[in-house]
Amino acid sequence: MSMSGSPIAIPARRGKAALVTKGQSIRVINTHGEQVVDTWAFRRDDMTEFMSMEHSRARIQRLIPSVGDSMLSNHRRPILTFVEDTSGGIHDTLMAACDVYRYRCLGCPGYHDNCTDNLAQGLGAIGLAPPETPSPLNLFMNIPWTSEGVLSFEPPVSTPGSYVLLRAEMDLVIAFSACPQDILPINGVGRTPTEAHFLLE
Amino acid sequence: MSMSGSPIAIPARRGKAALVTKGQSIRVINTHGEQVVDTWAFRRDDMTEFMSMEHSRARIQRLIPSVGDSMLSNHRRPILTFVEDTSGGIHDTLMAACDVYRYRCLGCPGYHDNCTDNLAQGLGAIGLAPPETPSPLNLFMNIPWTSEGVLSFEPPVSTPGSYVLLRAEMDLVIAFSACPQDILPINGVGRTPTEAHFLLE
Repeated sequence: MSMSGSPIAIPARRGKAALVTKGQSIRVINTHGEQVVDTWAFRRDDMTEFMSMEHSRARIQRLIPSVGDSMLSNHRRPILTFVEDTSGGIHDTLMAACDVYRYRCLGCPGYHDNCTDNLAQGLGAIGLAPPETPSPLNLFMNIPWTSEGVLSFEPPVSTPGSYVLLRAEMDLVIAFSACPQDILPINGVGRTPTEAHFLLE
Repeated sequence: MSMSGSPIAIPARRGKAALVTKGQSIRVINTHGEQVVDTWAFRRDDMTEFMSMEHSRARIQRLIPSVGDSMLSNHRRPILTFVEDTSGGIHDTLMAACDVYRYRCLGCPGYHDNCTDNLAQGLGAIGLAPPETPSPLNLFMNIPWTSEGVLSFEPPVSTPGSYVLLRAEMDLVIAFSACPQDILPINGVGRTPTEAHFLLE
């Protein structure tokens, strides 16, 4: 495994996308420790095939993937494998990317940055467009469940500089959003979205 | 609430769709007691707006909706509300519709009926086509979770003739698939998919 670059910023409240070659790994770094990073992966030569939470759960039979698990595409092919995780292992596969509708429901009067638009913006910056908005892999997002199935939105358990290492199982377009959620405490009780970083290795 | 018709069959291993007017209720009947019914709802005048499991979970903050809960569309608008449930209250929002890829992974050599194709077939019979395959509301499907987040595929707990009553919160196209899964025991330990029925009220 060779380093092939410097960390790339996912700016606070914004999206960022990159091309990844099969076999490369992507280190997603929670730079300041409490930032949720919505993550999408699309097959590079046919973006209608993409990482799918609902297909992945049927394969890994877990609510949260852990080291050794491969996420599946909507064609049930391995697309990203969890290789390392120093973040505490708390991520989310249940919640939709935030969007203009979400912030309207939360009482925001005007436009609010959101992960759905960030996906389009991040891909747009490299000349691409999402075929739809797949449900994201929400790295570092803490959505605990009870035995009765009650869900809540809680601050991350990750620490500054902790990371997840994901291996690309096919040639990919990877896209991230540093989630701009500042109403619920999912980016920490300070409700202050920050940047995060990733590194292609 | 007035009865407006006879029960409509969702044939074993097949799909069925219908137009529903805002305010009507849809009674989904587990006729033989152990049949999973994959359920989708699309806004009638713009099918790119549809019932979304990932948006609904963020609103209801539960893994399984129960009476009084409204499922949301991908525009975060109420689309279907649980009005009654005599089935035991066990349904699934986590698993993708089965598809040709699923049965290939499960070792089926040739074509196998599947809910994804049934969605297209059911809509096709009324001259419509799905804009994509949203993750379905899997009525009567029993996917328990542990405190560690481990999921399993179990037989339904529902009984013959039990039902769920859903109110349409907008003019809809509703689509069902009587899931043809006969390898895993999600349609009962006998692994024998059956018909189910629905009634517009």
